[in-house]
Amino acid sequence: MSDPWQECMDYAVTLAKKAGEIIRGALKEEKSIMIKSSPVDLVTETDQKVENFIISLIKEKYPSHSFIGEESVAAGEGSILTDNPTWIIDPIDGTTNFVHRFPFVAVSIGFVVNKKIEFGIVYSCVEDKMYTARRGKGAFCNGQKLKVSGQEDITKSLLVTELGSNRDPETIKIVLSNMERLLSIPIHGIRAVGTAAVNMCLVAAGGADAYYEMGIHCWDMAGAGIIITEAGGVLLDVSGGPFDLMSRRIIAASSRPIAERIAKALQIIPLKRDDATN
Amino acid sequence: MSDPWQECMDYAVTLAKKAGEIIRGALKEEKSIMIKSSPVDLVTETDQKVENFIISLIKEKYPSHSFIGEESVAAGEGSILTDNPTWIIDPIDGTTNFVHRFPFVAVSIGFVVNKKIEFGIVYSCVEDKMYTARRGKGAFCNGQKLKVSGQEDITKSLLVTELGSNRDPETIKIVLSNMERLLSIPIHGIRAVGTAAVNMCLVAAGGADAYYEMGIHCWDMAGAGIIITEAGGVLLDVSGGPFDLMSRRIIAASSRPIAERIAKALQIIPLKRDDATN
Repeated sequence: MSDPWQECMDYAVTLAKKAGEIIRGALKEEKSIMIKSSPVDLVTETDQKVENFIISLIKEKYPSHSFIGEESVAAGEGSILTDNPTWIIDPIDGTTNFVHRFPFVAVSIGFVVNKKIEFGIVYSCVEDKMYTARRGKGAFCNGQKLKVSGQEDITKSLLVTELGSNRDPETIKIVLSNMERLLSIPIHGIRAVGTAAVNMCLVAAGGADAYYEMGIHCWDMAGAGIIITEAGGVLLDVSGGPFDLMSRRIIAASSRPIAERIAKALQIIPLKRDDATN
Repeated sequence: MSDPWQECMDYAVTLAKKAGEIIRGALKEEKSIMIKSSPVDLVTETDQKVENFIISLIKEKYPSHSFIGEESVAAGEGSILTDNPTWIIDPIDGTTNFVHRFPFVAVSIGFVVNKKIEFGIVYSCVEDKMYTARRGKGAFCNGQKLKVSGQEDITKSLLVTELGSNRDPETIKIVLSNMERLLSIPIHGIRAVGTAAVNMCLVAAGGADAYYEMGIHCWDMAGAGIIITEAGGVLLDVSGGPFDLMSRRIIAASSRPIAERIAKALQIIPLKRDDATN
């Protein structure tokens, strides 16, 4: 039997490439046009333009499919995950990077059927790196097969995470205290390039041993999540339990022992789920 | 009058390129061979090989010049800066990244005469980005002129720094508490790619608004320091006073107001200077 979702995946790669061109074009312009200008949660005209571009073209081709997109949700649409084939889209993962021209900005597309990720695309468009994974068929970057480091010893690990965009003093304290606990194990170090999707792809490529974060969304994780598992990595909830795409939290690691050791160290930040109804 | 140091600079670019080739070659090998394996301060055979390569070729051409190199100093040579033309070299800035194949690794060469940096070269060799600056003649990346963002408002800034390799609990606490103070201003965010030299070049290129760190060395700052100032940026000590290459601390910013605001926020970590005699 032929792969029912391969055509969708090929289409997603084409769209991500075109979206990347739009983003690179916008980066050449003098200034990013801000839509919202809260102190830290930035949204630009390009985020909306790219999401509309991607969703409208997919809807044309697959009118029965469902969509969860960062900007559509911000505009009031729901983010309840059903069993229907669902495209989960972050038009610009790393909007703060985009605004500052810090060179890590990704288009993220995840495709979920019966609540299972079938394929994921992360296009890091300034670097021109196209990460892709189809369930059961491996993960690739620009056609080259990806493999996690396989590191199991936390004291020899390099981690990636983010300081996040929440400026609530209590949240900042937990984020930093979690870093303190991990650094004290000790570990080799912590890096942060400013996009969840690229951080996860760096783990998939074996350049870092694990990524963890709380407070991100399903559109930050759906594309890269399957890139991690298809590269031989492990997804876990920060509690150490099974990973939940709508929970807003993740550990993506090169091995189960590393993921479990990180879970043991983390203090949990209370968060409203992506699919909370109020 | 012709530029007396242009020939040295051209030579440094050639050497940095060749050193980058050696490093990229080593990254393709199965495993990095560790020289020292303290929990976090990593040194590999490649660090020593690249430093020997660079220094021996410069010594052949300029036998009267002085040298301060990370690995030579580790091997017991002094790091007193005199007025003599001095090459300050970090063969691999980002050794932890190198060991993990996290894709930011730089060759850094600074050239100092009468204690003033005359030129700087930072070759981020996985990205193949050659950053250069000659005093009074601007800063460039792969031939393209660099310009800092010019941002003066700290609440609109993106910063780069590192968590460092010191695992002393007191030091970790200060590093994290400094992040907390800055995040609470608030600022847009903090990034960390794992090399001082590349972090500074990202500021020079306008991708981030400032970099600060305590605990680094003159060989981490000499190459990129002049890239910052020639791109229109400002170097300041973390106290807010003048920058001192041998002090092991730096603020490299897109503007003086940003640099001063960061200095105001930072709690200072006590450090032994690079030129301390005991």
